[in-house]
Amino acid sequence: MANDYISDALIRRLPSYYRHLRELEAEGVEQISSKELGERMHQTPSQIRQDINCFGGFGRQGYGYHVARLKDRVGEILGLDHEHRMIIIGAGSIGSAVARYPSFSKEGFRTIALFDIREEVIGRQIGDLTVMSLDRLESFLDENPVDIAVLAVPKHAAQEMMDRLLAKRVDAVWNFAPTDLKHDPAQCTVVNVHLSDSLHILSYKLAQR
Amino acid sequence: MANDYISDALIRRLPSYYRHLRELEAEGVEQISSKELGERMHQTPSQIRQDINCFGGFGRQGYGYHVARLKDRVGEILGLDHEHRMIIIGAGSIGSAVARYPSFSKEGFRTIALFDIREEVIGRQIGDLTVMSLDRLESFLDENPVDIAVLAVPKHAAQEMMDRLLAKRVDAVWNFAPTDLKHDPAQCTVVNVHLSDSLHILSYKLAQR
Repeated sequence: MANDYISDALIRRLPSYYRHLRELEAEGVEQISSKELGERMHQTPSQIRQDINCFGGFGRQGYGYHVARLKDRVGEILGLDHEHRMIIIGAGSIGSAVARYPSFSKEGFRTIALFDIREEVIGRQIGDLTVMSLDRLESFLDENPVDIAVLAVPKHAAQEMMDRLLAKRVDAVWNFAPTDLKHDPAQCTVVNVHLSDSLHILSYKLAQR
Repeated sequence: MANDYISDALIRRLPSYYRHLRELEAEGVEQISSKELGERMHQTPSQIRQDINCFGGFGRQGYGYHVARLKDRVGEILGLDHEHRMIIIGAGSIGSAVARYPSFSKEGFRTIALFDIREEVIGRQIGDLTVMSLDRLESFLDENPVDIAVLAVPKHAAQEMMDRLLAKRVDAVWNFAPTDLKHDPAQCTVVNVHLSDSLHILSYKLAQR
């Protein structure tokens, strides 16, 4: 597989490739040159060509790259060619927003359960899902294979929930709690969405203006 | 100012410094060595010392760094020592989640208005705010100075909203729409939260396991 050689920097660019190629496809563009794609993505044409070489199978491109094929290839590298079953822990604002986010299910990230600890939230309908009691997490995981757990709980509850997920051998956690979770990266892959960190970066940049 | 020399990589680490130092302060820790801070932040002690040198005023640290002073200094660099007035455009799941996110207001990011275009949403109460009609955006901005606009609208509406904000000289946009907004970076600072990109990175890493 060509993607054995994908660098960390390119990994971070992959979703942007996917997003731009999908937009191009939606606009009806069939072919695109490295120059045009570079302009859209604020990258140099040589960077684009170098990146796409890493994807494999797109070597000679006299007339530009075939948008749909390239999008499919990037999607395949990103693992978007198969379904992911997700559960969401925490049915507060963030957990509910993730549950309702329309593009996730379109891309095969299918939320199959939503858990909360609060009595007044359990049983509530959010989108297609009924919020389940957190007491049922372990038995649910015993019966239902899950690819990704979304952690959308308050900071003080995050590590305990993480430990429960690790005990059930969950492979991947998408963490919205504003804390870094202790875990063995070889056992479980964690990607954080630290909203405050992002807002702080904006605040920093604003202060520098 | 020492922070004239802060690199992009350090800028990305600043929020993590702030988060860890705040946690240490909450735990009652008064002093911390570069070794201990490095262990918490998964950085080498020499990286920590080098970073903190850039903050200024923390040169000799025989007994470790003073946690509260260091936290305040990082907060100052991040611009967290003064209030930011925010408006949120789009009162859907994401916009509402941002409006309700408790730590933002505690850190001085005060949401002063929430706008939506949908008749059925206008007038609705979300937290302390009543959703206003998007028709009133320009007149609101004429009368109320705003530091940050949060863009939480669907992709197809994002650029048009961005153009309206640029016309009103809004300095900073925190963009949740899954698209890259066209703008002059010298006029307006944009920081993106592309949730799908983050989920795609997780999916990629899961596929590599």
